Amino acid sequence: MKLILAIVQDKDANTLSNEFINVNVQATKLSTTGGFLKSGNTTFIIGVDDERVDEVLKIIKETSHAREQFMAPPVNVDVTGDSAMSYPIEVQVGGATVFVLPVEQFHRF
Amino acid sequence: MKLILAIVQDKDANTLSNEFINVNVQATKLSTTGGFLKSGNTTFIIGVDDERVDEVLKIIKETSHAREQFMAPPVNVDVTGDSAMSYPIEVQVGGATVFVLPVEQFHRF
Amino acid sequence: MKLILAIVQDKDANTLSNEFINVNVQATKLSTTGGFLKSGNTTFIIGVDDERVDEVLKIIKETSHAREQFMAPPVNVDVTGDSAMSYPIEVQVGGATVFVLPVEQFHRF
Ligand code: NI
Ligand code: NI
Ligand code: NI
Repeated sequence: MKLILAIVQDKDANTLSNEFINVNVQATKLSTTGGFLKSGNTTFIIGVDDERVDEVLKIIKETSHAREQFMAPPVNVDVTGDSAMSYPIEVQVGGATVFVLPVEQFHRF
Repeated sequence: MKLILAIVQDKDANTLSNEFINVNVQATKLSTTGGFLKSGNTTFIIGVDDERVDEVLKIIKETSHAREQFMAPPVNVDVTGDSAMSYPIEVQVGGATVFVLPVEQFHRF
Repeated sequence: MKLILAIVQDKDANTLSNEFINVNVQATKLSTTGGFLKSGNTTFIIGVDDERVDEVLKIIKETSHAREQFMAPPVNVDVTGDSAMSYPIEVQVGGATVFVLPVEQFHRF
């Protein structure tokens, strides 16, 4: 048994939850706030048998890895009411920090 | 020293907190949401000397183990205003998932 | 790589966050509630290379250790509208509980 702690962006948390449910992996979610990034993130506590660790890591990586995304920037409206042309900008989203911890005892009561 | 992570139902969290206070075990509570069950649950972070691990596990088991309970179902009221007879139904409540983790260093500052 | 779990008082959490950012240590914050003390506290999840563990422990100790502080007590106003003289009282603030845990795998996706 291992304990996996996975810290992901809030925007990836629901997808990741559903992936875990699909493959019958039990995960508990904590609402957390990031260090460098001030934005909210979600920490998963996952208990998993040793032989399923790689499978769970793969799911986390595929669902939550850092990637670029084009976003519409906020529209600028000047005092005359004209809005300036705005171009989509590329931002980085996602990213996961994952710890695999040894477990001495596991119980389900 | 061990770190015990115990995930229990919200409804058992207060009783468990009080049990820990009674026996002088320090526990920190996190509000968490479950994997399979969408309902809220509470995660306890408990720091405990090796020789008290079994005592703490016993407290968690006795306070939070899965058990059946009879509940009054919601009353059905039909369009004429009559309410149908309703019988208590048996539901499962409680249940705890517990990890005991090794600790390399413990400090109180 | 080690995982450091540090439970500190809410009032020390922002200072500690900033210290970690200053030295480029990644920390994730959880809002938690205490065992003995009912007041809110904050739990940091910190991932750190083995050779930086002592540095991080020193930062936690210096920022969050238990210490005495003088506080103005709440003013007592009697029924005639007179307020009694009140003297500052010494209270204990701060304090940190810290666990250093072994990590088997660490990933950044
Ligand atoms: Ni991709
Ligand atoms: Ni029972
Ligand atoms: Ni000092």
